[in-house]
Order: sequence, then structure tokens, then C-alpha cells
Amino acid sequence: MINTLFLPELREMLADNNVAELSDFCVAMHPSRTASFMEGLSDDEVWRVLEHSMPDNVADIFSYFDEDRKRNLLETDRRQQAAELVAHLPSDDRVDLLQDLEDSLRQAILELLPVEERRDIQRLSQYPEGTAGAVMTTEMAKLSKDLTIRQALDEIGKQSDDYETIYYLYIVDAEERLRGLVSARQLLTGMKTPDTLISDIMETDLVTALVMEDQEEVADKVAHMDVLAIPVVDKSQRLLGIITHDDIIDVFQEEATEDAHRSGAVEPLDESYLRTSVLTLSWKRGIWMTILFFCALLTAIALEQYEDRLKVLYWLVPFIPLIISSGGNSGSQSATLIITALSRGHIELSDWFKVIVRELIMGLLLGVGLAILGLLTSVFFIPDDPQIGRLAIFVVPITLILVVLTGTLTGSILPLVFERLGLDPAMMSNPFVAGIVDILGIVIYMTVAAILVGLPG
Amino acid sequence: MINTLFLPELREMLADNNVAELSDFCVAMHPSRTASFMEGLSDDEVWRVLEHSMPDNVADIFSYFDEDRKRNLLETDRRQQAAELVAHLPSDDRVDLLQDLEDSLRQAILELLPVEERRDIQRLSQYPEGTAGAVMTTEMAKLSKDLTIRQALDEIGKQSDDYETIYYLYIVDAEERLRGLVSARQLLTGMKTPDTLISDIMETDLVTALVMEDQEEVADKVAHMDVLAIPVVDKSQRLLGIITHDDIIDVFQEEATEDAHRSGAVEPLDESYLRTSVLTLSWKRGIWMTILFFCALLTAIALEQYEDRLKVLYWLVPFIPLIISSGGNSGSQSATLIITALSRGHIELSDWFKVIVRELIMGLLLGVGLAILGLLTSVFFIPDDPQIGRLAIFVVPITLILVVLTGTLTGSILPLVFERLGLDPAMMSNPFVAGIVDILGIVIYMTVAAILVGLPG
Repeated sequence: MINTLFLPELREMLADNNVAELSDFCVAMHPSRTASFMEGLSDDEVWRVLEHSMPDNVADIFSYFDEDRKRNLLETDRRQQAAELVAHLPSDDRVDLLQDLEDSLRQAILELLPVEERRDIQRLSQYPEGTAGAVMTTEMAKLSKDLTIRQALDEIGKQSDDYETIYYLYIVDAEERLRGLVSARQLLTGMKTPDTLISDIMETDLVTALVMEDQEEVADKVAHMDVLAIPVVDKSQRLLGIITHDDIIDVFQEEATEDAHRSGAVEPLDESYLRTSVLTLSWKRGIWMTILFFCALLTAIALEQYEDRLKVLYWLVPFIPLIISSGGNSGSQSATLIITALSRGHIELSDWFKVIVRELIMGLLLGVGLAILGLLTSVFFIPDDPQIGRLAIFVVPITLILVVLTGTLTGSILPLVFERLGLDPAMMSNPFVAGIVDILGIVIYMTVAAILVGLPG
Repeated sequence: MINTLFLPELREMLADNNVAELSDFCVAMHPSRTASFMEGLSDDEVWRVLEHSMPDNVADIFSYFDEDRKRNLLETDRRQQAAELVAHLPSDDRVDLLQDLEDSLRQAILELLPVEERRDIQRLSQYPEGTAGAVMTTEMAKLSKDLTIRQALDEIGKQSDDYETIYYLYIVDAEERLRGLVSARQLLTGMKTPDTLISDIMETDLVTALVMEDQEEVADKVAHMDVLAIPVVDKSQRLLGIITHDDIIDVFQEEATEDAHRSGAVEPLDESYLRTSVLTLSWKRGIWMTILFFCALLTAIALEQYEDRLKVLYWLVPFIPLIISSGGNSGSQSATLIITALSRGHIELSDWFKVIVRELIMGLLLGVGLAILGLLTSVFFIPDDPQIGRLAIFVVPITLILVVLTGTLTGSILPLVFERLGLDPAMMSNPFVAGIVDILGIVIYMTVAAILVGLPG
């Protein structure tokens, strides 16, 4: 849904080259709204609107465009404007953006940047995707521990435009090592005693992230501690950057999408659905389709073994999908519950006995529930033939109880085992649970049938 | 993993009643660490440690205990201490906490609270779970629009302990209607002109949440706008509270878990896995197990119709689970991709044609891939019997192509249809996709077999 409310006015302002109104449009509203009102304009028109505003404001508005628009704007011939814009973007965002561009264009823009900015971009680009270093920004308020509260306030007043957040001020020693933190709140309330050294009021028990730490672990830390930003340091405690709350929210959204894809048997995508090529997508789906194909093939082999039995007791055949899917569903329910509880920290490995007892009880309850439905179904479906025997109607119900129980136990034990082995349970559980439960389902079904109605021959 | 590092020392301090060291322990570290070092203590010992610290610090430490510990601490006989603690907790957290207690205990604690706090709790409790009102806090910095920058700074200096965040200061008129916002950054940098009215520097284009708005929508707004907090207003724009970034992260984690449960065919839980009773869990799983049972029953009925065909062409039977699961897997892959892309805003309804074309191509690619595996399998498995006919080995491969294609199309179209109808695609898609794809899978399989190897009789 493109926002067209302002389009006619904007185009009129551009036609009249009405500088006053255009520059007013750029600053009158929250930048996110300004950005959305420009959705209907061409890339060139957007540049013509933006050239009437200050670089910082342009960068603010730009950050609310969608990814495609951002790339397209940088890909026009306005290299000088593009470079000026890039110079004013937050340091973490522009690295991601530049990595999306073609090599030659990226090189051209980099060459137009001031040398300091260029070095910053190159330094940040070296951290691998998914690490703290790759999501951090270098624009934090860094103060020497020898300043007084008054000097610190002066310093911030002068430079605050360069910082992504001034709510935390990081205190470093002469070797750039992180020594403490002062919050904006402490400075505001400390103004009564402006000559106190900030090192006297700073907090020194800090939670930090290592630059090569996994972004998901860092995000969990921030969520647990309820902090606005976390400082990123190297092994010798030198302050390299900070990760702010908005980046943490992005990490959570990314990780939630990855988990959803994994549980839907798709390898996580690096880009959004529409920007991932059909070939890449097919590959990311194909891997799992193939693995699951071989799981299902084992089921086919299992069924082959029971050919004689199934040919004589043909009425068992239509229920095969029902039996398999009941086991599969209860297994994937248990696996989902255990995987999410593990990742949210609601259960730990030491809870294994409690978990298994609960899943055992649930398996029995759910199994008996389905068995009642299965019994009603059997009464209707199984032919009334004296040769089949009166116990035949109990084959499906009893199988359902055992299969559902197999599902809850496999679905809960396997993720715990993978966690114990240090493997990501979310990644490993799906095909294994499906494979094991399907085959056991067939074996249980055939065995129950043999016991209740006798083997053929 | 319980942190036992400090346990012996803590117990010694308690035995000696060493007030100086105990009160030092409570403030020396970040409250989250203090909390974790007390994990091994009994509830009574925790109270005896905490009674040596200031109420605000006690509340900070308390907020890092896990849910069970929190409840247990309030359930001891120390009613007066519990009430004092509750009075110092953030207003949104304590409402959730009190709702977890037994009625009589909650009543007892409420009666010990100052009347103002009691009213605040009662007001917040009335908003239904999942609305902005239920997650907001009432402890925001609210300033009259007639203050100057200097007066505003004085005001904050005096009261900042009562606020959950002072990074945004909300400006209201005499009727408590929200008129604007001043950031701590603006105040800090505005100190050069202390006599300016805050209404002259405040931002007036604000993004707000309505008190009854869905928490997920509010969280999306905050994530999109990269703000630290969002003000919550009623229909006449009166400022009721704010929702801060840490609560937004909680909302995202909650919603991600809900989505994971839904896609695993479990109704979302209100509490964590171990705190949900086995009966409740069985119910939340049983609903979906029952719905999916009836879907599978339709498959059984479909198979019944083909009894004559399957009895003659018995070699088709072992492949039934493989055919059904291939369709089901490709369907759930497509549904997962489309549902996550819709919820992240990566695709919109207007992209429907693009999506279907992509899924059509992917269905063909994946189908042909599986068909090759299916052909190799058929060569090995299908008995070399002149009666069966030479075309028999193509039945499974051709079926796989058509079934996978059915999966990708059903899995992508259904979520789009549900979104169009205003139903939550994440909630509705699972059983429908499974049901439709399974039955179509059987029909396609039997039809392909009939065409290639002829009908019996």
C-alpha cells in the first residue's frame, strides 16, 4: 500500500522548484512519515526532494526506506550525494548497505568518503555475519575517566550529534580500555555537584559483549539485563563499539524467523523471501525435502516387510496415513514445546526426568483421547466379517495410544539429547523425530494387528 | 546451574549477622549478579540478606529472580516486607506478579500498600492480557508544557527515581492530553538556553499506541520506528502510560514462542512449559490433534474408495506414506515461508501473483528433484513382473512432481487467502494445508496409477 496522500503536492513543489516548501516537508514530520510519503516518487524525484535538507536529516529519512529503495537510490548516478549520505548513516547500517552493492559501485562510493569514515567501514566489514562485531556501531559516547561531570556535559553538548545513543556514556582509560559507565540519568541528577570526577560516580560492574561473540547470545544478555545498549570489547577489554536496543530487536526478529524456517524444514534464508532467488530457495528447501524423502523411504521399506500381512488384512491399509500422522503430530508438538522451552531458558537439561514424566502422562492422555475417536471410526469402517474377528476394532485404537506415546517420548527426548551433545536442537530434531516415529508407527501397527487378529497363514 | 560461588560467605555473614558486609553485598555488583549469587539460598535466607538494603535496590535485585522464586518470596509470612517490595516494583511488572498469587494473599498485600499504589495496580489490572494497557508502565516523566528547560531539569532531578525511563519526557496540557516529547538529549544540549520553554523545543509529531491496541502491533511500530519507548493514550489523547524497549523485547519473545507453538500445532501457552499443568497442556495439544485426526480420517476415506485398485496394484501401497509426506513437507515449507514473510512485512497481498509464479517454479524444481530419487527407488522396489507393465516405474516419480506442486501452491495460496479474509495466517494454515494436500495426494497418486498401468478388471 503506497502512501499517495502528498504525492500531487510534492510533484508540484518539485515542478515549481519551491525550495522553501521542499525543505520544510523534509523536517516537519517524523522522518518515518516523511519517508512513507515519498514512497510513490521515482528514485530521481526522491533525490531532488532530499537535496533541500541537511545531511543528518537526509540520513534519518533514508533509514526508513525499504531495502530496495535504499539500494536503488545509491545506484543512481548521484555518486557525490550518495557518498555524503553514506558518511552520515549509522556506522552499523551503512556497512550492511554497502555489502549489498556491486563491487564497482561500492568502491566508487568508498573513494568519495573522508578517509576516517572509510577506515571505519573497512574495520567493521571484517567481522563475520552473526557476530557482535557485525551488528555494533562505533558511534558511542566515549569519555576519559579524568573528566568532571561539568566537563563531561560540555563534551556531550558539543558532540552529541555524532553518537547513536547518549543515554550511556562509556568511560575509558588512556589505553582505550573500558573502565566504567555513566548514564545520562546520573549526569542529569549529578549536576548539583559539577566538579565531581565521573570516575567517582561511574558504575564499574559492567556486562560486555566480546566482539566475536554470537549475536543471539548477546541479544539474550541484553534482554535479560534490560539495558539500552551493551558495550563491545576485544579480549584486552578495549572498547570497540556498542550494540543498541534497536539492533537487539532486529536480532530477535531475525532469529525468530530463522527458527520458524527451521521448524518448517527450510534452511534459514540470508535475505527476505522475494529477494532470495528461486534457485537458492529451491536449494534451501531441497536439502530438507531430500532428507525427509529418505526418512519416508525407510517407512516404505518397513511397509514392504509386511506385504503378506497387509494383503490378507487389507482393511488395515487405509488407516496407515492416519496412524503415521498421529505419531508425527504428537512428536512435533513435543519437540516444539521442548525446543522453545530450552531456548527461552524455561527448562534446563537437569529437568530431563520431570520432562519425560510429563510427556509420558500427556502421551497417555492424548493417546486415549484419540483412541476413543479411533474406536468410533473402526466401528464404522471395519467390515463386519466373521473372518476378521471381533478384536479387529481394537487394532487402530490401541495402536493410536502406543504411537502417540512414542511421539511424545521421541519428540521430548531427542531435543534434550541434541542439547546435551552441544547440537542446536532446533536444527536437528525435525527429520529425526519424523523418521523414528514414522517407522516405529508402522512396526507398532503391524505388531498390534498380528497380536489381536492373528498372523495370516 | 545454580551459582554457588558466594554461598559459603553469604551463609557466614548471615550466621554472624554481619550487617555491614550484607548491605555491601547487596549494592557492590550489578543487581542481576547479586540475584544470581543468591540462587542457592532458601527463601528465608534471601529475605534476611535483602533486609539490609534500600527498598529500590531490593526491587532491582528482585526483578532478576526467576518467576518461581519471586512468587515464593511473596508467599512467605513476611507480608510487610513483601508489601514494601511490591510498592517499589515497576508498575507493569507488579501487576503481572500479583495476578499470579492466590486471591487471599494478593488481597493481604494490596491492603498493606499506600492507597495511591493500590489504585494504580487496580487501574492497570483492568486491561486485558495482550493489549498495550496490560504491558504499559505508569511511571513516566510527565511535564507541563509551560515549564522552561531549567524548570524541567529541576523537576527531573527531584523525581527521577520514580520514573522507569527519563530518556523521553512527555509534555502534557492541563487536561493531561499528550502534546509533545522532549528527549533527554535535547535537554542536555539545550542547557545553553535554560529559559526556553520546553514547548518550543518539543517534537509534536508523535507515534502513540492506543490503550486497547494489540501488543504485537505496538511492538512492530516501536521496532519500525527505532524508538526507546512509546506513549500510550486513550481515545481523547490523554497520556495513560508508556511502554519501554525492554517490554517490547519481551513482547517479541512471547510472540515468537506463540508462533512456534502454532506452527507445531500447539495452542500457545499462557505460562512456561513446566508451569503449565499437564491437563492444560494436553488440552492445548488435544484440540489440534483432534482436528488433524479428522483431516487424516478424510485421507483414510479417500483410500477406502480406491480399495479395488490398491488390492490389484498392491505394490502401490508401501509408497503411500512417502507420497503424502512429500506433499505435506513442500506445503508446510511454502506456508512457513509465506507466513513469516507476511508477518515481517517482506511481502504484501498485492505481491500474490509474483508469489504464486515463484512457488510454481519451485514446485516444479523440487518435484523434478524428488522425481529423480523416486525413479531410482521405483527401479529397485517395483517387482519385475510383465503383468505390471513397463510404465509402472513412472507412477511414483510423476505423482511426486504433481504432489509437490500441489503442496507449494496450496501452502502459498492459503496463507494469502487467510490474510485477505483478515484471519491470522499463522493460526489457520497448518491443518488446512495438511488436510487438502493429503487428500489431493491420494487422488493424484491413484489417478496417475490408473492412467499409466490401467484400471483393474
